Amino acid sequence: MVTKSEVKYIQSLYQKKNRIEAGVFVVEGPKLVEELLQSSFEIKSVYALADWCKANPQVAATVVSDQELEKLSHHQTPNQVLAVAGQRYGSGQPDFSNRVTLLLDGIQDPGNLGTIIRIADWFGINQIVATEDTVDLYNPKVIQSTMGSFLRVQLWYLPVENLMPQIHVPVYGALLNGQSIMDHPALTEGVLVIGNESKGIRDPLMPYITHAVTIPRIGHAESLNAAVATGIIISHLAGKR
Amino acid sequence: MVTKSEVKYIQSLYQKKNRIEAGVFVVEGPKLVEELLQSSFEIKSVYALADWCKANPQVAATVVSDQELEKLSHHQTPNQVLAVAGQRYGSGQPDFSNRVTLLLDGIQDPGNLGTIIRIADWFGINQIVATEDTVDLYNPKVIQSTMGSFLRVQLWYLPVENLMPQIHVPVYGALLNGQSIMDHPALTEGVLVIGNESKGIRDPLMPYITHAVTIPRIGHAESLNAAVATGIIISHLAGKR
Repeated sequence: MVTKSEVKYIQSLYQKKNRIEAGVFVVEGPKLVEELLQSSFEIKSVYALADWCKANPQVAATVVSDQELEKLSHHQTPNQVLAVAGQRYGSGQPDFSNRVTLLLDGIQDPGNLGTIIRIADWFGINQIVATEDTVDLYNPKVIQSTMGSFLRVQLWYLPVENLMPQIHVPVYGALLNGQSIMDHPALTEGVLVIGNESKGIRDPLMPYITHAVTIPRIGHAESLNAAVATGIIISHLAGKR
Repeated sequence: MVTKSEVKYIQSLYQKKNRIEAGVFVVEGPKLVEELLQSSFEIKSVYALADWCKANPQVAATVVSDQELEKLSHHQTPNQVLAVAGQRYGSGQPDFSNRVTLLLDGIQDPGNLGTIIRIADWFGINQIVATEDTVDLYNPKVIQSTMGSFLRVQLWYLPVENLMPQIHVPVYGALLNGQSIMDHPALTEGVLVIGNESKGIRDPLMPYITHAVTIPRIGHAESLNAAVATGIIISHLAGKR
């Protein structure tokens, strides 16, 4: 049984400003929620159908009906269980030594951000820095498309322009007429800048790119999707460590 | 001015069975429509706001109001112009010699299919064969996410199981424990099989895979998005031709 004020509260969390104010976010579906419960994220509340509760007796969940779950859920077809957990960002300052870090320059599409976090997790990159205008990590579509990888990757939203002068490792950026990523030596330390979907890497960051790289084009497409390009570049630069 | 029956007809084209019956599809927005008009696709009709028509006097378009375009459009924010064109699939039989062909085994997500077509176009692969249960090429979301690449890539829907025994070039498939794609020699002839989003390459095609390849995993994500994996594999196998 869920109260009216709980419904109102959880629905309010689908808006970024309410999520930030409350410092929490929503995770849906048994696979993601079960991974979340096993992580060190702070769980605030869990709402689930009776069947899920029966199968997971160790979890302190509020039993809800199908109709109640529908009211709480952001999905068209709600999936058994929904959890509210505390937001968490990268702790302290990122350390750029002896590792590969992604730097996102204003990625706007939630699916792209989620997919990029999943790619980073696949290739063992667990540090991502994002400009403050990058889409919110705790947007439900971002969380969904990370497929659980948000649990294993640290992300900071930082005033990147102030940060750049303090970075003393190579800074890679995908630009036209850079060095081909094909046969590029393996990268073990550096920052890889991923540009905005329509504008690419924006002017304020350009002076800090020390290594321009390019995905060679054989055919005619004007560009590649931002997440696909990220996957291709990471696989060539950091896929052989 | 657009008639009620035109509105009804164009709205009906957002359903696959109506599109197939009519043999046509819808393209929206100035960038895509202008590329379409320059292609050899057969244009059936064009509906556009007065400003667009003024800027494109050579096009025989029906002038519509904002309200009329909204009724015709599939988008939340309709974008100036909408065209109806004749569907076109790969002509004759695909020829597998001396080229790289993609084979899609039941890709379901429209965004993934569109993104894969865009990747193929970027890397100069202009032949794609799809199983008959693969999502429809002329789904508006597919067309949109190809970003125009559907104009340059031929796609066949074929009973793939009957086709496989006739393929006499290497058949690559992404499988667990295959050969790493890193440092793979450049592929100039072969078929690359892309599996379904949740099931991967399905049983009927498995016996025909002659070369199993793998994207090495360094971190912990369970899998990669299908379009991202396709981009990574193509770039390593066929990105150096």
